Amino acid sequence: MNKTQLISQIKQKQSFLCIGLDTDIKKIPKHLLSLDDPVFEFNKEIIDATKDLCVAYKPNIAFYESMGVSGWESLRRTLDYIPEDILVIADAKRGDIGNTSRMYAKTFFEQLDFDAVTVAPYMGSDSVIPFLEFSNRWVIVLALTSNEGGLDFQNIEDKNGKQLFKNILETSKKWGTDENMMYVVGATRAKQFSEIRKIIPNHFILVPGIGAQGGNIKDVVKYGMNEECGLLLNSSRGIIYAGTGIDFAERSKEKAQILQQEMAFLLSEKGI
Amino acid sequence: MNKTQLISQIKQKQSFLCIGLDTDIKKIPKHLLSLDDPVFEFNKEIIDATKDLCVAYKPNIAFYESMGVSGWESLRRTLDYIPEDILVIADAKRGDIGNTSRMYAKTFFEQLDFDAVTVAPYMGSDSVIPFLEFSNRWVIVLALTSNEGGLDFQNIEDKNGKQLFKNILETSKKWGTDENMMYVVGATRAKQFSEIRKIIPNHFILVPGIGAQGGNIKDVVKYGMNEECGLLLNSSRGIIYAGTGIDFAERSKEKAQILQQEMAFLLSEKGI
Repeated sequence: MNKTQLISQIKQKQSFLCIGLDTDIKKIPKHLLSLDDPVFEFNKEIIDATKDLCVAYKPNIAFYESMGVSGWESLRRTLDYIPEDILVIADAKRGDIGNTSRMYAKTFFEQLDFDAVTVAPYMGSDSVIPFLEFSNRWVIVLALTSNEGGLDFQNIEDKNGKQLFKNILETSKKWGTDENMMYVVGATRAKQFSEIRKIIPNHFILVPGIGAQGGNIKDVVKYGMNEECGLLLNSSRGIIYAGTGIDFAERSKEKAQILQQEMAFLLSEKGI
Repeated sequence: MNKTQLISQIKQKQSFLCIGLDTDIKKIPKHLLSLDDPVFEFNKEIIDATKDLCVAYKPNIAFYESMGVSGWESLRRTLDYIPEDILVIADAKRGDIGNTSRMYAKTFFEQLDFDAVTVAPYMGSDSVIPFLEFSNRWVIVLALTSNEGGLDFQNIEDKNGKQLFKNILETSKKWGTDENMMYVVGATRAKQFSEIRKIIPNHFILVPGIGAQGGNIKDVVKYGMNEECGLLLNSSRGIIYAGTGIDFAERSKEKAQILQQEMAFLLSEKGI
């Protein structure tokens, strides 16, 4: 999916919601456990209930990988089930020397046909660039993450007082364009969005940390939205684990609807 | 495997060689391709030929993941085949928010029973600490990597002139001990080992970048070896792809032997 198509989806659905499929077999409703592939059945119901309210799904690869072979099968079934017009992000946070990053890129873009993959920047250019060699695919580089430990290193100031995450934004944006790169900036860092927008005015930003992690949508939009929206707000646990009974998907839909309606209002204020 | 056991293996084998199992089905000898599991058969022969010469094997997870379900099966067979007294490192470079890092830790330590896993430090404490909660397991944190892009960010100096990788060493070493943490420092950065040893005198350092990447063993040992050895030198492509014919494993053994003999000499010079 390219940038024009993504923006068109956002306008059409009046939503910039990304739903994180952090599907944990220990947390899904008990009645699913007797089925052949409970993880897929859970995802299928969540997708059916929310696909008109979101523009992206983000399976968290750790949760599938932790189940071994059956996890990869659940992931593949889930990917096959997601409608074509929804962006699918592998939350994998990979990154290695060039020949290895190329292997990871092939896995996520060719084998599994993801639209996008999250990548850690610590190993620099040759760890990220191999992911950029696929057309109509996206690399989403970690900039300023939502977790507490995110501040351990990402905020370290260089000799000129520039924080590490800004150095990473400035250097890495030269490796690609706003047509094939996005960045991760946590919702818990909302007030830094205006400075981030000075460096990357046009890139999409994937924003985790809404809900379970405590981030606030209004602040993110105030400081981070651009004329094309430029934001994908992710909620995982807050949506997918909204219910625990037979009607869990309906509960998820209600949570997604609340977010979508707030987003529709915020988009309309911007005339998008 | 704990630190005492690892040091004992190094002394016994007079080797601190780690062999990287970056097994790529496109690069293995053609005669293996007709077998049921060519990747495992390749690894099996490499292990048979080299197990007395090395103290660690390091499967590069990207190469197995890129083959989907069959790749995970090849990996599991390989792990089952490696002798108990050899350290097994998952070169995975994972790292995410706490609940996700915990999933990755379970995958590598519980499901796959690796002794160690490589972790990227960019997301800070809560991305690394969940890996430290398993007894007799090791977290190997990226400090100064061997690749060209490694210098893009890892060398950025803070206000006090301290490079990022040193900040990472100083902060992260407090999260664990030299009994459950190691660091990655590339062989191409040999001259920085003496400064690194001031920060982490007792930690083991996993050193990639010998061979294909151009690093030099003597320099690494000169600046990086401590009284307990404290080094694991990794070679991947230089050993496993030494031959392309029916006798490929014999060629690998010869390459491993050359490294082991050099290591035996360097260890004896140190009285280890």
